[in-house]
Amino acid sequence: MFNQKLTTVISLIGSLLIVLGCTLLLPIVVGFIYGEELVYAFIIPALLSLGLGFITQFKFKKGKINLTTGMLVCALGWITISFVGALPFYLKLDYTYLDTLFETVSGFTTTGITVFTDLSNLPKSIQFWRCLIQWLGGLGFLTFFLVVTFRGQAGLFQLFTAESHKINQSRPVPNIFKTVKILWGIYALFTLLEIILLKILGVSLFDAITHSFTTLSTGGFTNYDASIAYFKQTGYQYYKLIEYVTILFMTLGGINFLVHYKVLTGEINALWDKIEMKYFWAIISGVSSLIILDHYLAFPFKWSGLERTIRYTLFQVVSILTTTGFATEGIITSFYPALAKQFFLLLMFIGGCVGSTAGGIKIIRVAILNKLLQREVKKIYYPKHAVLPVVVDGNKISDQEIFKTVALVFGWLILIVIGGAITAISSNLSAWQAFSGIFSALGNIGPFYFSVEKMQSLSAGIKITYIIGMLAGRLEILPIFVLFSKQAWRR
Amino acid sequence: MFNQKLTTVISLIGSLLIVLGCTLLLPIVVGFIYGEELVYAFIIPALLSLGLGFITQFKFKKGKINLTTGMLVCALGWITISFVGALPFYLKLDYTYLDTLFETVSGFTTTGITVFTDLSNLPKSIQFWRCLIQWLGGLGFLTFFLVVTFRGQAGLFQLFTAESHKINQSRPVPNIFKTVKILWGIYALFTLLEIILLKILGVSLFDAITHSFTTLSTGGFTNYDASIAYFKQTGYQYYKLIEYVTILFMTLGGINFLVHYKVLTGEINALWDKIEMKYFWAIISGVSSLIILDHYLAFPFKWSGLERTIRYTLFQVVSILTTTGFATEGIITSFYPALAKQFFLLLMFIGGCVGSTAGGIKIIRVAILNKLLQREVKKIYYPKHAVLPVVVDGNKISDQEIFKTVALVFGWLILIVIGGAITAISSNLSAWQAFSGIFSALGNIGPFYFSVEKMQSLSAGIKITYIIGMLAGRLEILPIFVLFSKQAWRR
Ligand SMILES: [K+]
Ligand SMILES: [K+]
Repeated sequence: MFNQKLTTVISLIGSLLIVLGCTLLLPIVVGFIYGEELVYAFIIPALLSLGLGFITQFKFKKGKINLTTGMLVCALGWITISFVGALPFYLKLDYTYLDTLFETVSGFTTTGITVFTDLSNLPKSIQFWRCLIQWLGGLGFLTFFLVVTFRGQAGLFQLFTAESHKINQSRPVPNIFKTVKILWGIYALFTLLEIILLKILGVSLFDAITHSFTTLSTGGFTNYDASIAYFKQTGYQYYKLIEYVTILFMTLGGINFLVHYKVLTGEINALWDKIEMKYFWAIISGVSSLIILDHYLAFPFKWSGLERTIRYTLFQVVSILTTTGFATEGIITSFYPALAKQFFLLLMFIGGCVGSTAGGIKIIRVAILNKLLQREVKKIYYPKHAVLPVVVDGNKISDQEIFKTVALVFGWLILIVIGGAITAISSNLSAWQAFSGIFSALGNIGPFYFSVEKMQSLSAGIKITYIIGMLAGRLEILPIFVLFSKQAWRR
Repeated sequence: MFNQKLTTVISLIGSLLIVLGCTLLLPIVVGFIYGEELVYAFIIPALLSLGLGFITQFKFKKGKINLTTGMLVCALGWITISFVGALPFYLKLDYTYLDTLFETVSGFTTTGITVFTDLSNLPKSIQFWRCLIQWLGGLGFLTFFLVVTFRGQAGLFQLFTAESHKINQSRPVPNIFKTVKILWGIYALFTLLEIILLKILGVSLFDAITHSFTTLSTGGFTNYDASIAYFKQTGYQYYKLIEYVTILFMTLGGINFLVHYKVLTGEINALWDKIEMKYFWAIISGVSSLIILDHYLAFPFKWSGLERTIRYTLFQVVSILTTTGFATEGIITSFYPALAKQFFLLLMFIGGCVGSTAGGIKIIRVAILNKLLQREVKKIYYPKHAVLPVVVDGNKISDQEIFKTVALVFGWLILIVIGGAITAISSNLSAWQAFSGIFSALGNIGPFYFSVEKMQSLSAGIKITYIIGMLAGRLEILPIFVLFSKQAWRR
């Protein structure tokens, strides 16, 4: 009845559910601490998840894992954990299942678009779960799953294919599982560091933990409708420092974690010696400068407001380039004229570094395309048979890699066109707003050019489109196309 | 003092000026017919052009023409004829030289963005020149120049490189110069046909000629501020038929002229048997249907208004896909909700077929990228060493061609980002408007989401940006990059 491929896929997703079941127990602890009576909202999904997981382990045997299986597990795995992970929200809160699914996908994919309102009055355990799924999704739930459950079976390497941008570059140790463990170690360390810093600056332990979860994962969920602006609005003494700390850790989240590994082991140069890091710093400083300039072309310059303008701009540029999506001065306000709005859309498209927790098409791909363009121009005036490879960081980029990059970017554009059209046809949003929404979903960013209330009120069709968009963005497009390909299931 | 490359470039541009000088004599005839006293406005530039042309022929010797020389002649040639072609406007009308240069570049590149107002009161000879330069630019002034002046020297083939999309596909006859002559013959034939049809429908001979010039060239200039809507607004009995005729000839202008050649020689299949034509018809019918659907989701359906809705939509879709830019119902009005606005931007990007007079990145390139995406998805689930070429119309597309396509599209996106940023930073346009303007310039379209008056009032920096954008779009990006490359001049 089932072919071997399907059996393997089901078995692996079963193990995934066991891991998810265990993580579902954590919010229960939070619930107990705060004396909340909603334990069932987590117990039921946890038991369901563990039960289904163990049954599949019993019933389905794992076969050989190849590239296709890896892609399929990846795509279906993310969908499955989202469906189950949504249950606590659905059981406890007063939202439709679609809305809670939307919120969960937005969480796991670290997109951070929310359809929940009155966030600060949600039960603590729910707030915690909401931020925990972002943290788990940050470095990839599947890589987390591998760290927790496996000890290096060779075939499982293929499982990484769809999340390969997290780990495929110059690993510190030859064993890929050790590499992933090191990355999660660094991730946990940074999270702990941010928790301590925020606590010192007067943030409550609960807020410090949850906000650190969503900063390092570049997820962008917060416990407050006002996002990070909450700390200023409610009069925290060190709100400026809280914002600077957030800028720092968003930046860390947007950088390749292998770079962090190098820096932590003494190789400070790694922060700027590769092309992706050079672009990263150049984009942040260049775009920030232009936006500050544009701001002062529209508003009178005052020395007293300069620190604020720089802080706001840096915060917003880093927040959007790293696809975190935290807001201080909302991007809808008139603080920024048109230039910033354009750049923000561009930054959403570019996103962070490979191997980071950020979304977008990733800086290295823009660099590769840029090198390709330069090469093609050179070809025109070089002798006909001159060999002109595309070189990045001293390595020749293979044609295969260029083609893959192009396919990804083009697939991205197609999904933006389709998603934008669906949004436009089934809502009364303007063309610009409709584009910004699907950009935000695909890039796993969060903010867009219409209100949260408007997002909630959109049709089911649009919400489903965004769900697919968020998953497609997180999985880097190609697995989604594989999922919808009949041939892939057969072969 | 001059290196050989520069000498050759100057000499060729000199011959180009001689041809331009001759065409500048045509409006003088028109001026005589209408008894206008502005002969000097054409005589001076004509003499200047002829004079400079003959001097360079005398002083500079042509050397070997290679790919780089071709690109440089192409880029500089277009700039030169624009500078000289602007003189009649500057000498006779009350605009700055920059504005007249803008109008001329907009003309030669068949963009059709106008900074002139009160068009119907311009002198006839000026109106004629304005539309003639679009007609000359349509199939490429450089190819026109070759037809007129050369008889098949082998090296000159390279001159076509930058306009190669006009002729590089399956030529009907092996001799490239004969091919170009055939194409211009068909072009002239269609123009004549439209003139006759418009005349029959009650349009004055002058309007019939000038509007046919700008329809077949997908240029989009008209003699009236209201564009084609003029015929309805001023009560022409057959205004609907005039609009349908215009739709027909815009469509013809947007199709590869080699397809026309095949059809005219009996091969009717050519209209749909290649992938580019399939996409062409699919885009027109698909997008029109969706826009009509979207219109009726926003407005109540009435049978009586159906013909009008179809006609308006078809007109606008064809006008924008073929990058003509004629308007009936203005695209700024509320006739079309957000979906159409998005699609129009998409169509501007795509543009018409290669070998047509249309701008944009050209349909075939979208098809190639689409095939590449499909191939990359297949690669995932096919055996590792399976050979999967990108096949279009039964031919394997070479890696080289794919790379060139990607470079072109990526260069396009970079110019949109830069142009959009310059527009946003030095105007008070919204982000969406600023994007639409540079989209329109690069795609050689014409319309955008702000008024003509607004366009006129924009800063010199923006106008220069658009001039570069229009030329870059017309020359398909790469020659512009070559022009700004020091190495290209040396090698
Ligand atoms: K985010
Ligand atoms: K045009």
